[in-house]
Amino acid sequence: MKITCTQENLNKALSIVGKVINKNTTLPILNNVLLKTDKKGLRLSSTNLELGVNYWIGGKIEEEGEITIPTKLFANFVASIPDGNVEIKTREDMVNIKCNSYKINIKGIDAKEYPLAPKIENDFLFKVKSEDFKEAVVQVLPSVSMSESRMEITGILLDFSEIEDGRIVLVSTDSYRLAQKTIQLSRENINKESLNALGNIRSVIIPKNAMQELSRDLSEESEMLEIVIAENQIVFNFGKAVIISRLIEGNYPQYKQVIPEKFMSQAVMDIKDISNAVKISGLFSSASNNSVKFKMGSDGKIEVSSEANELGNNNSRIVAKTSGKELEVVYNYKYLMDGLNSVLGNEVVLDINDENSPSILKTSSDETFIYVIMPIRN
Amino acid sequence: MKITCTQENLNKALSIVGKVINKNTTLPILNNVLLKTDKKGLRLSSTNLELGVNYWIGGKIEEEGEITIPTKLFANFVASIPDGNVEIKTREDMVNIKCNSYKINIKGIDAKEYPLAPKIENDFLFKVKSEDFKEAVVQVLPSVSMSESRMEITGILLDFSEIEDGRIVLVSTDSYRLAQKTIQLSRENINKESLNALGNIRSVIIPKNAMQELSRDLSEESEMLEIVIAENQIVFNFGKAVIISRLIEGNYPQYKQVIPEKFMSQAVMDIKDISNAVKISGLFSSASNNSVKFKMGSDGKIEVSSEANELGNNNSRIVAKTSGKELEVVYNYKYLMDGLNSVLGNEVVLDINDENSPSILKTSSDETFIYVIMPIRN
Repeated sequence: MKITCTQENLNKALSIVGKVINKNTTLPILNNVLLKTDKKGLRLSSTNLELGVNYWIGGKIEEEGEITIPTKLFANFVASIPDGNVEIKTREDMVNIKCNSYKINIKGIDAKEYPLAPKIENDFLFKVKSEDFKEAVVQVLPSVSMSESRMEITGILLDFSEIEDGRIVLVSTDSYRLAQKTIQLSRENINKESLNALGNIRSVIIPKNAMQELSRDLSEESEMLEIVIAENQIVFNFGKAVIISRLIEGNYPQYKQVIPEKFMSQAVMDIKDISNAVKISGLFSSASNNSVKFKMGSDGKIEVSSEANELGNNNSRIVAKTSGKELEVVYNYKYLMDGLNSVLGNEVVLDINDENSPSILKTSSDETFIYVIMPIRN
Repeated sequence: MKITCTQENLNKALSIVGKVINKNTTLPILNNVLLKTDKKGLRLSSTNLELGVNYWIGGKIEEEGEITIPTKLFANFVASIPDGNVEIKTREDMVNIKCNSYKINIKGIDAKEYPLAPKIENDFLFKVKSEDFKEAVVQVLPSVSMSESRMEITGILLDFSEIEDGRIVLVSTDSYRLAQKTIQLSRENINKESLNALGNIRSVIIPKNAMQELSRDLSEESEMLEIVIAENQIVFNFGKAVIISRLIEGNYPQYKQVIPEKFMSQAVMDIKDISNAVKISGLFSSASNNSVKFKMGSDGKIEVSSEANELGNNNSRIVAKTSGKELEVVYNYKYLMDGLNSVLGNEVVLDINDENSPSILKTSSDETFIYVIMPIRN
């Protein structure tokens, strides 16, 4: 292999493929990045067997070839050299990289030993604006379950059962709260043939890590994101990057049944006011079972409070538009705060039934996102 | 106690006094901040028995008093409330803090149980421009010894034996490298009476933590820093803050003897070129005994390289102004990098004797700072 490319492109590529974390220490080659010339230029690939990232950069290819070298060492070298042309040349298992008067020889491992990427020939199922998808992922990520006791909720559900009406839904839950985001697609961005080819499949569960990786990499430079779904894999195509992830098997909970449709009471509040009040109550959270008490009066007054014997107590009053009956509900501090951080808009709407039924958090300006939160039973 | 002050002032004060780390877990009150009204306003104080920080803020004092409350809880509350007036009121051991409609009650501990700050009546020894002192501290901090086997080099030496000529010197060393910074003082900022009162004392050793704390807090708002030296204590007065630290006892090494005065060879290099080359050599440092080889030719060429059997090798060429004989010296990567990061200027000067004697790193534009580094013996 002998190619010349720019430090800038190489650095960008490594900042993306270099983030795939390898937990598999029995296969040291997974700490390496694969360099491979193909018709799209120089491909850099990285995988941890569950998640693979590919990125293409342009360059002058004088000699085709492929090799793998330690990702971290390569990335650190590229980050240390000035902007300019970088020449990459292999001689047997040594990779010689040169930029101006800086020269490094890195011992590589034969690309034949690198795990093969799954071949997915399917066409895209839908295309979506990158920024819309990124926003959605950022909103639903905090509610994904951290516990591996129920694998199916350690991922994000992509529900495309309503795709023929131009809607897809992202859902996450850890059984204490649930986040649901609806994205509207343009008709021309939906591929009916791919949908038919999927048979009965109308939803998939995508691992949290893949979604995190995707949300970090989906920058504004790629306007549209293409999503391809195969049997056990999902592929994200955007800009010069391709992310491939395995899917999580299992049955996702029937989330629509969890979302209440009617409420006894409603409070509409300024997001800053309620966020400050909850944050202050959270100062005692570790010493108070993480409880935050939410009290709604009939007079348009909200009181947020918490108490910890050893430390003291706190109490904040918020002016709100209230309707329905007066009540007192106790929430988990972290779950409430996550919800407040996820909604977009200045006016938060909290719909409450009673102290034992799920409440809903949303904003008056955003119809696409709702956050369901279970109160703590007293 | 009953006082009213602004959230902004309180937040600033807590960001400074809140940073004193308490390692003493047998005295829980040290996790508290002392609030005390005096003629300068409301004093906030924090101490870990070795290092104490005081900060005064103005406010409306309706009732004098003193109390201590958990620093972290108080600081987090103040950071969570909007800018505005904050009312602090004590009722027995409870402290009631109110800002707009946010209210918190924190359980305090009687101020009488708080350790007394040492009383230092001495006048200042010298005044120095805050920015000059901060720059000096930042330059010498990296070379302070981390090992507690020789306590006297775990601090920074403040040598004022030449203060009558308007010079003070800050020195740090861990016996592998040494940093020396000279600061010029204006005559009117030196207090001869304080000097006489000190008897034979012409230098003190200041703990690293105190200097770190000081360098963080010495912001541009305080133009001058006043330094007071007492028997076992040093006091830093600046703006609205006072830092008091104990001094380290012991005899500091005779640092002037370590600094060579003559050299066999000299290389003058662009700081970016040599820093990049050393950084690249450092990529192999963990696998190469941290060695970086520095080779100087007669032709104005420098070669920086390192090698690690398992990983590969690297080699960077730098154009330099060289004089003296050709040579090859091996340095520790980290020590060399620290030196390059500490010098100020665009043109680095490296004065070398041979592979077994200390070299000196400095810049051509800054006469006040030199960095002595021992080569690794081969």
